[in-house]
Amino acid sequence: MSINNTDKIFKAVSAQAVLTEQQDLRQYLTGLSTSFGIVLSDKKGTTFYTDPRYLEMAENVLNGTGIKVKLFEGSLEKLLKPYSEVAVPLPRMLYGEWRKLADMKLKIVDSAPAFEAAMAVKEDEEISRIKKACEITDRAFCELLGRIKEGMTENEVAAELEYLMRTYGASGTSFDTIVAFGENSSVPHHETGFRKLKFGDIILIDFGCKYGGYCSDCTRTFLFGDDGWHDDFKKAYAHVLAAHFAAKEQIVEGVKGRQADAFARDYLRNYSLDKYFTHTLGHGIGINIHEAPYLSPKSCEELKNNMVFSDEPGVYFAGKFGIRIEDTVMLSHGHILSLTDSDKKLTVL
Amino acid sequence: MSINNTDKIFKAVSAQAVLTEQQDLRQYLTGLSTSFGIVLSDKKGTTFYTDPRYLEMAENVLNGTGIKVKLFEGSLEKLLKPYSEVAVPLPRMLYGEWRKLADMKLKIVDSAPAFEAAMAVKEDEEISRIKKACEITDRAFCELLGRIKEGMTENEVAAELEYLMRTYGASGTSFDTIVAFGENSSVPHHETGFRKLKFGDIILIDFGCKYGGYCSDCTRTFLFGDDGWHDDFKKAYAHVLAAHFAAKEQIVEGVKGRQADAFARDYLRNYSLDKYFTHTLGHGIGINIHEAPYLSPKSCEELKNNMVFSDEPGVYFAGKFGIRIEDTVMLSHGHILSLTDSDKKLTVL
Repeated sequence: MSINNTDKIFKAVSAQAVLTEQQDLRQYLTGLSTSFGIVLSDKKGTTFYTDPRYLEMAENVLNGTGIKVKLFEGSLEKLLKPYSEVAVPLPRMLYGEWRKLADMKLKIVDSAPAFEAAMAVKEDEEISRIKKACEITDRAFCELLGRIKEGMTENEVAAELEYLMRTYGASGTSFDTIVAFGENSSVPHHETGFRKLKFGDIILIDFGCKYGGYCSDCTRTFLFGDDGWHDDFKKAYAHVLAAHFAAKEQIVEGVKGRQADAFARDYLRNYSLDKYFTHTLGHGIGINIHEAPYLSPKSCEELKNNMVFSDEPGVYFAGKFGIRIEDTVMLSHGHILSLTDSDKKLTVL
Repeated sequence: MSINNTDKIFKAVSAQAVLTEQQDLRQYLTGLSTSFGIVLSDKKGTTFYTDPRYLEMAENVLNGTGIKVKLFEGSLEKLLKPYSEVAVPLPRMLYGEWRKLADMKLKIVDSAPAFEAAMAVKEDEEISRIKKACEITDRAFCELLGRIKEGMTENEVAAELEYLMRTYGASGTSFDTIVAFGENSSVPHHETGFRKLKFGDIILIDFGCKYGGYCSDCTRTFLFGDDGWHDDFKKAYAHVLAAHFAAKEQIVEGVKGRQADAFARDYLRNYSLDKYFTHTLGHGIGINIHEAPYLSPKSCEELKNNMVFSDEPGVYFAGKFGIRIEDTVMLSHGHILSLTDSDKKLTVL
């Protein structure tokens, strides 16, 4: 199914013309993923301007959507000549892009709030793509567990996982896969490297894939054999898992981002673990791996049905170990539904 | 080896303070790849401000480089209070970031030209990382050729190739791998999909990987069996290959970007193929897959020793087939050296 969100944004913005040059926003409007393009909507309709590299593909994909396709020739000045007012995503504009419009003496309207609000609440087709990305994520992870062997490097485990996601239909990863062995798990955004897997190691894997231009995001922490020295880890694991579920169970429609974050953070505080929870509970997931809504101690955003976001409490003990347990979830009919859902009971390989 | 380009940029910019928030520029300054961070240099030295997720890693990696590491607390206003002037990469700034500085009444100096000029000419450590990325690229491609089988999808071939690059040491791909079978090769930026490989198909693969934060970029076009119907393709292939070499042989130190582009374009014009060459000859390659210098008909940039860029002429016949032959190359001692260099003679699997 094709995607055409141009009407929704044009109506929400209410300006003579809506000009969109940012890759993710263009993709939201047209469903097309291209490195160059300009989407211009006015009351007569929408045109996608692109260069010769994408012309044939854009014509094929947008055929029948009502979005016209044209080769971008000439200049932005020429394109905007008919208008005295134009909407652009102001906080997302580069200074140079803004300067150009300001020099044209156009009245500038900010389209960013309309995009942010619209993109946070997913349409059926968007949800179906995210679900598919999450299914691939789960399936690849389950298959991966049987392939992890002593002596493999973090990089080799990432290679296996990415290979599996690709062969199950992903178009790529949604971010650089994090594989952290042993003490490396204490770095929340560890750079996957050449540390070799030893018996008794903790393994933390944070990964996701793209399907139809939409992302998934998942983290699992588990043990490669149990050498009997993991009491602290096991206790902390149980608490992080309980915090993860505390959020899942208590988040309902209408809860604010900061309340969602507090469901997990308050739980961890009962066990004096909140000071090791050094990031926020979650972020929206869609075309971008990080987008609205934000589930952080400062967020006033209200969580709504058909929003998709992560639930990812974590604790990190520098130089020792870290634990993060993350699912991609959505608010569906008022309650949380897990879109990634592979086993979260502590796994010992 | 660690990377510290803070002095070079601070001297080239010549402002009281140099503030850098953009991910690629931060990485150029510090060698660190993080999703959040602020690098601030003044005459006393450089500090890298980051959040708790990256603190431990940054302290480890920057230990001994002279760059201090601090937790970012407070605000940009507080950080910039001691200065009346600050340098930022103006055309790369978001409008919102620029607005914040403008509201502080700071004199703003543009650091972008200094970054662009410095990043285009690579240091030894940068070249060694790019060379390693290119070696992995070549090795993975050669191994891939033996694994391509009839009935595989484009996506499965991409999965194999990315798996090989990862296992040979890459930290990921430098862009979404393009695998195009048959008529899909006529779309210069084809989205890798589920088309199955048939005997006699053309295969176009555009791919690259990252090593130590630096990119490689390579394209090969070849045949999966020869069904005897490829005379037009073979003729065009020979011309594209000759255009590729025409550029390699004629580019010397001091040549301008537009002259480099013309070496290939003029060659193709002799065979009336220039109208099918719908993109530019090449682009710089480094931390970013596209950066200065640009080898395009409009580029006045002078090519210098230790610049790394692509040589990638291509021709595309809509709905029929396309051909692109690309190497990552560098200007070394006045002449072109190929960094990716797998066989470019027409391969028939």
